[in-house]
Amino acid sequence: MIPRYSRPEMTDIWSPETRFGIWLEIETLAAEAMENLGQIPPGVTAAVRKRGGFDVNRIDEIEREVKHDVIAFLTSVAEHVGEEASFLHKGMTSSDVLDTCLSVQLVRAADLLVTGIDRLLTALEKRAREHKLTPTIGRSHGIHAEPTTFGIKLATFHAEFQRARARLLLAREEVATCAISGAVGTFANIDPRIEAHVAKSLGLSIEPVSTQIIPRDRHAMYFATLGVIASSIERLATEVRHLQRTEVLEAEEFFSAGQKGSSAMPHKRNPVLTENLTGLARLVRSAVTPALENVALWHERDISHSSVERGIGPDATIHLDFALHRMSGVIENLVVYPDSMLRTLESMGGLHNSQRILLSLVEHGVSRDDAYRLVQRNAMRTWGGEGPLLDLLKKDPDVSSKISDAELEALFNLDYHFKQVDTIFERVFGTA
Amino acid sequence: MIPRYSRPEMTDIWSPETRFGIWLEIETLAAEAMENLGQIPPGVTAAVRKRGGFDVNRIDEIEREVKHDVIAFLTSVAEHVGEEASFLHKGMTSSDVLDTCLSVQLVRAADLLVTGIDRLLTALEKRAREHKLTPTIGRSHGIHAEPTTFGIKLATFHAEFQRARARLLLAREEVATCAISGAVGTFANIDPRIEAHVAKSLGLSIEPVSTQIIPRDRHAMYFATLGVIASSIERLATEVRHLQRTEVLEAEEFFSAGQKGSSAMPHKRNPVLTENLTGLARLVRSAVTPALENVALWHERDISHSSVERGIGPDATIHLDFALHRMSGVIENLVVYPDSMLRTLESMGGLHNSQRILLSLVEHGVSRDDAYRLVQRNAMRTWGGEGPLLDLLKKDPDVSSKISDAELEALFNLDYHFKQVDTIFERVFGTA
Amino acid sequence: MIPRYSRPEMTDIWSPETRFGIWLEIETLAAEAMENLGQIPPGVTAAVRKRGGFDVNRIDEIEREVKHDVIAFLTSVAEHVGEEASFLHKGMTSSDVLDTCLSVQLVRAADLLVTGIDRLLTALEKRAREHKLTPTIGRSHGIHAEPTTFGIKLATFHAEFQRARARLLLAREEVATCAISGAVGTFANIDPRIEAHVAKSLGLSIEPVSTQIIPRDRHAMYFATLGVIASSIERLATEVRHLQRTEVLEAEEFFSAGQKGSSAMPHKRNPVLTENLTGLARLVRSAVTPALENVALWHERDISHSSVERGIGPDATIHLDFALHRMSGVIENLVVYPDSMLRTLESMGGLHNSQRILLSLVEHGVSRDDAYRLVQRNAMRTWGGEGPLLDLLKKDPDVSSKISDAELEALFNLDYHFKQVDTIFERVFGTA
Amino acid sequence: MIPRYSRPEMTDIWSPETRFGIWLEIETLAAEAMENLGQIPPGVTAAVRKRGGFDVNRIDEIEREVKHDVIAFLTSVAEHVGEEASFLHKGMTSSDVLDTCLSVQLVRAADLLVTGIDRLLTALEKRAREHKLTPTIGRSHGIHAEPTTFGIKLATFHAEFQRARARLLLAREEVATCAISGAVGTFANIDPRIEAHVAKSLGLSIEPVSTQIIPRDRHAMYFATLGVIASSIERLATEVRHLQRTEVLEAEEFFSAGQKGSSAMPHKRNPVLTENLTGLARLVRSAVTPALENVALWHERDISHSSVERGIGPDATIHLDFALHRMSGVIENLVVYPDSMLRTLESMGGLHNSQRILLSLVEHGVSRDDAYRLVQRNAMRTWGGEGPLLDLLKKDPDVSSKISDAELEALFNLDYHFKQVDTIFERVFGTA
Repeated sequence: MIPRYSRPEMTDIWSPETRFGIWLEIETLAAEAMENLGQIPPGVTAAVRKRGGFDVNRIDEIEREVKHDVIAFLTSVAEHVGEEASFLHKGMTSSDVLDTCLSVQLVRAADLLVTGIDRLLTALEKRAREHKLTPTIGRSHGIHAEPTTFGIKLATFHAEFQRARARLLLAREEVATCAISGAVGTFANIDPRIEAHVAKSLGLSIEPVSTQIIPRDRHAMYFATLGVIASSIERLATEVRHLQRTEVLEAEEFFSAGQKGSSAMPHKRNPVLTENLTGLARLVRSAVTPALENVALWHERDISHSSVERGIGPDATIHLDFALHRMSGVIENLVVYPDSMLRTLESMGGLHNSQRILLSLVEHGVSRDDAYRLVQRNAMRTWGGEGPLLDLLKKDPDVSSKISDAELEALFNLDYHFKQVDTIFERVFGTA
Repeated sequence: MIPRYSRPEMTDIWSPETRFGIWLEIETLAAEAMENLGQIPPGVTAAVRKRGGFDVNRIDEIEREVKHDVIAFLTSVAEHVGEEASFLHKGMTSSDVLDTCLSVQLVRAADLLVTGIDRLLTALEKRAREHKLTPTIGRSHGIHAEPTTFGIKLATFHAEFQRARARLLLAREEVATCAISGAVGTFANIDPRIEAHVAKSLGLSIEPVSTQIIPRDRHAMYFATLGVIASSIERLATEVRHLQRTEVLEAEEFFSAGQKGSSAMPHKRNPVLTENLTGLARLVRSAVTPALENVALWHERDISHSSVERGIGPDATIHLDFALHRMSGVIENLVVYPDSMLRTLESMGGLHNSQRILLSLVEHGVSRDDAYRLVQRNAMRTWGGEGPLLDLLKKDPDVSSKISDAELEALFNLDYHFKQVDTIFERVFGTA
Repeated sequence: MIPRYSRPEMTDIWSPETRFGIWLEIETLAAEAMENLGQIPPGVTAAVRKRGGFDVNRIDEIEREVKHDVIAFLTSVAEHVGEEASFLHKGMTSSDVLDTCLSVQLVRAADLLVTGIDRLLTALEKRAREHKLTPTIGRSHGIHAEPTTFGIKLATFHAEFQRARARLLLAREEVATCAISGAVGTFANIDPRIEAHVAKSLGLSIEPVSTQIIPRDRHAMYFATLGVIASSIERLATEVRHLQRTEVLEAEEFFSAGQKGSSAMPHKRNPVLTENLTGLARLVRSAVTPALENVALWHERDISHSSVERGIGPDATIHLDFALHRMSGVIENLVVYPDSMLRTLESMGGLHNSQRILLSLVEHGVSRDDAYRLVQRNAMRTWGGEGPLLDLLKKDPDVSSKISDAELEALFNLDYHFKQVDTIFERVFGTA
Repeated sequence: MIPRYSRPEMTDIWSPETRFGIWLEIETLAAEAMENLGQIPPGVTAAVRKRGGFDVNRIDEIEREVKHDVIAFLTSVAEHVGEEASFLHKGMTSSDVLDTCLSVQLVRAADLLVTGIDRLLTALEKRAREHKLTPTIGRSHGIHAEPTTFGIKLATFHAEFQRARARLLLAREEVATCAISGAVGTFANIDPRIEAHVAKSLGLSIEPVSTQIIPRDRHAMYFATLGVIASSIERLATEVRHLQRTEVLEAEEFFSAGQKGSSAMPHKRNPVLTENLTGLARLVRSAVTPALENVALWHERDISHSSVERGIGPDATIHLDFALHRMSGVIENLVVYPDSMLRTLESMGGLHNSQRILLSLVEHGVSRDDAYRLVQRNAMRTWGGEGPLLDLLKKDPDVSSKISDAELEALFNLDYHFKQVDTIFERVFGTA
């Protein structure tokens, strides 16, 4: 985890304090169920609730000795609780605690990531509505194609992050399971009702069948989903980077008053945030392959997944969380230049309307071949720098004899391209 | 695509004939909608339906000339249909056809993959029920832990492939969209109702907003899902490979009568199918990263995704389809050796019951420390080869004075471990 | 393998005919060595050389029956050679043939790839020398920075592909080994001198120790190297795509006379080749992870690597070979617009010289702070559209009192930036 | 970076103190060269050497304000050095410092990794020689094949890590370059001789041509190499895990006296170190894809690589370093059970000699078909549990009439398989 790309809300989820706190919660809930079932003496749960606690440094100290984290934790808890602690963990296996805890952490992380997506969605919708009818050239292959609006551009990202949100909720559901099933998952020494109680209390589902551990296809799906979301961030970051490049400059990341891009060149405002987000997307995605490799554990379990998860668990969620908020900030504060967009749009002398002229000539009785020839000879002149296409067409008798100047001007009306913007906005945002 | 790892049902989906057939279907449906809306002359659709067709070789020939696949296709269709063909594709862009076709292909591929998963689920349930109470040692870290049943082992895979199935349906939904929105997706030259008609006829949703193309986060999610499923196949394949290794030999891939593993060594039956499946899983997974890299296209679209999809589209679906059926065959025909499983289980002299003895001694009033010492000294002797743990315990007066022989024998009863098998089966299969 | 992204020279290397031809060569060379050592009767090699052959269809037919490719091959060979064939393969294991053959194929593929790199290097040097002093703006973060030349741009790629070439030769060396060591690699039934003979004849090294197979870390390194080279292709493709975008248009992929980007818009020339190359880079890179996963085979060998290599072996080499030649064609025919480059360079009104003005003012005795203030106030006006920086500076008495017009003009001389071009060219190309 | 999988020697390389220390070294060396060339006043270097220093917290503080790490650093240095510091960094760009520093760090990391490999090589050779002739069954597909020795097994890993070492040195060379070439790499404001001086002093090569930054194909190759080495660690870890599984138990990770695998089951010694190493291999490999994605930066540079390298730079080197030492420890202390290996070898009743019997029968004049039949009928009986193959062959008159008992016994002599062990050891270790 790279501290400068983290937010405390997410790093807290992965702190030792949080982890051991969840462990204690799991052990206490399990004890409560056992007590209710009469399997341990009454009063144990109350004692743990009252005096329960742990000391992170003490746990580290014990672990160095016994080389077993759960035993170290239980020992520390016992030092707080007293002898009632001996009834904790009865019939349970370490994985019951570790894996259920990881579920809780991943669920909390997902919830926090949803918050980040929501912030981004809000920003995208706000800016999309603001620029709903701001004309800008649509580009395919990096080449000017036909007009669109900056609002539609942003709407495509809103739709994409709506999907990201839905996927994240599914990924959350994938990992929201609890397994308290004992060694090799047979419930030989622990009643399934205990699992049910812990699961319900923690807002988790029970794991239908576990092989000592919660199966890792769930986690693979979770991290794969983070990877897809990171890729969507990369698409948005790439768009901003393109818009900010000197020759385009249709939009810019916000620069604070004091911030300096370069000592003397006032145009040197680099899209450093979105470049950074491009790199963060690569980092988040790098969790996907090891998560997939973690699935095929040997037999009922091996522990090769553990070191991987100590890395990718915090890293992927922390960096994605940071990226969502950084991306939100970029969109919220994005400096948009509608004039520049219009200038770019017009820079091709109206060539993007050539298809409409062609269709109009055909409708006015010109054969398709002739119409094509007429359009192209004027388009070539515009491209060659001889003037806007509309002017040339008006002056071309073969065209002007067919289409009046007023009609020609109408064919260059930008609004033609925007007549379905409401439809698109309704589809994406629910209302136009 | 590697021919020997393919089935014709899936390769057919990716054949040129199928692809152009879907293109024709899309163009015809779009024309139908335009005709209904009065945008093209009546009779066009009927003419296309009647005389519509294409010639793959002719399309190739034209494409070599014009270097544009959709134009080549439309030219070939026009050669069959006649002049009504000139009304096809009106206001559409190539991506409308290409991307909607890819959706149809990926949806069909998903449907076929579901069939493969269903076959595997059927096989897993059948064999799980057959071996519901076949005792086998559960292993963690490759080391004997506590008993489980072979049926439970298989049930864990059934549950995993149930999840795979659910994920696949979600992935199918992700890509089941239709975009007929014209250049840069503004519907400037095409009525959204045409898209609605085509989508409905093909069983797809409309794409809420497209940037000329259907956004690639959808496809990334699709291929990521295939990667997770492939990893589950690897887990099952790895299990079989472990079970078949000489020292374990608790189960084996089926060997046909004529098949020879080795000329003279009758034990040389290699788990070649599951080794092969392990490799196929790696191949399928290799589609995930490029699919993620395909998301961040430039502006409204660039075409860098296309060459990638020409590779991973067929490859990942064909190989996974093949893998699901090969895996199903392995499970259907798996030769299981319950005797060998039992022998393995007992090979440790009953050490896997040590925890139960310990608990029983405590219940009989022995202090935890003393109980631990008593169990361990006998366990060490069993481990040292001095005899089964039960025998040694009976002969140890410190133990036998506390627990009767009958009680001791009961503690070694395997059924203790299996009392929740019904619960697990109910959870996984719906009925015990 | 995607046929449209292949060249016959490379696909031939992976054809069944080539593969079986190499097998026959290996078996014949091994027989020759055995004959020389007196381990098989004299005349066997001569007979195989004279009548040796195989029939691909026949091999397929036999393989369907015996399910063993090497046995099927040997049977087919025997049908051509006669009884002398029974002395072939003596003491050898299938992997001896399969793995040594794969080495030969990967070596030949590497040699062909080197040819592709050489073509690209030639093209890059030619165009770099042509544009050695063609001024163009250097960009960092997509923002104009300081001037460079188009020749230097191309030189950076030349240097990168020199490294690619060197890496490829190392990767070739990694896999250029021969193993003829029998089952589990102990030489129990085959003399090491046979391996030495085959290796020498095929231009390979002997594998110092094999575990039945040639270790797969070698192949992993090979495919990882292809992945790095593919990434370099992506960098060059990305550069061309950027240069061709409408707002930049400093260079373009060549368009043949008949080729049409768009029916009526003459500017619609899409960088489809470099977009395609970007995608191909992703495809080639997708071989890296499975190749890494292939290393950790079980014990002396398992066969999980085989299905992977049937995919990535041909795919990665064929697609990279195609990409190198497509990239070479793009560079050879690249349409470069020096006027456009100059226009872009000047579009910022000379702001890229601000650092030089600052340094000059300091040299003329202005304090650093004052100098900074003077430069920035003029730069801001240029940026605001009030005129070129040089003009404004001349008119600013605080500046002109310190630096003469002639001196100021000298500070805007582009040549200042190019004084080390010779140095760089010497470093990269050996001569300036 | 996961603290529990790190060693201070490697984490130190990536500490802020080390990084800023290298920056200061670079700036000082550059100043020294400028001073020698008369480009800055004499005495600057001496002043920096004498009073040079920085304060990490102060740098952080300044960076929060100016948002530029190199400026923050220079400011802190100036606070120590005084006004001579104003001559530092003249004509340089931040990347000159950052990238050259990264080279130094990666070179140091490589040197440390070589030390780790050397420790592992030493351990492997020592244990290989110790078990040079310890018989063990060779396994293909997890199935017993023919005998080998445990020494040969280890020798294969030694050869593999020799290759790893050689690759690492090449990877080191890839990144051992220095770029001090100013903005966009043209040396417009900095003399190439300065670069030469800094490079030489730091033991680096000059970068022939840089695009402001050191090209990232170099770093991609570096991290790809680490990925291959990690995969070799995974192969060795997998071997140990297999050997330690209960049914095999031919070798075990060392267990310290106090260490407990399980409270009561003395056999429960889990191969946790090698399982952990398997996971660490996945983590290290996860750096490869983002490193490949870092190559295609835009134009002369973008900064998307930076966040990636802040992650993978420390993580991949620290985890691999830790893994090499953990792996070395495992091998140094590996508990090997030759008796168990022999028992395993013999557990198949001598079936692994069937090929030799067959060849001997043929040499004694039996037809190949008859010989095959004779061997197989006895082998099937051995496989069926009727006794060791040798005993059955002796009792089979069709065999014993051809081959004497003494000859038969010789055919079961293990030494036959080991006659080339010296050859192999000479190849791998230089001496037998």
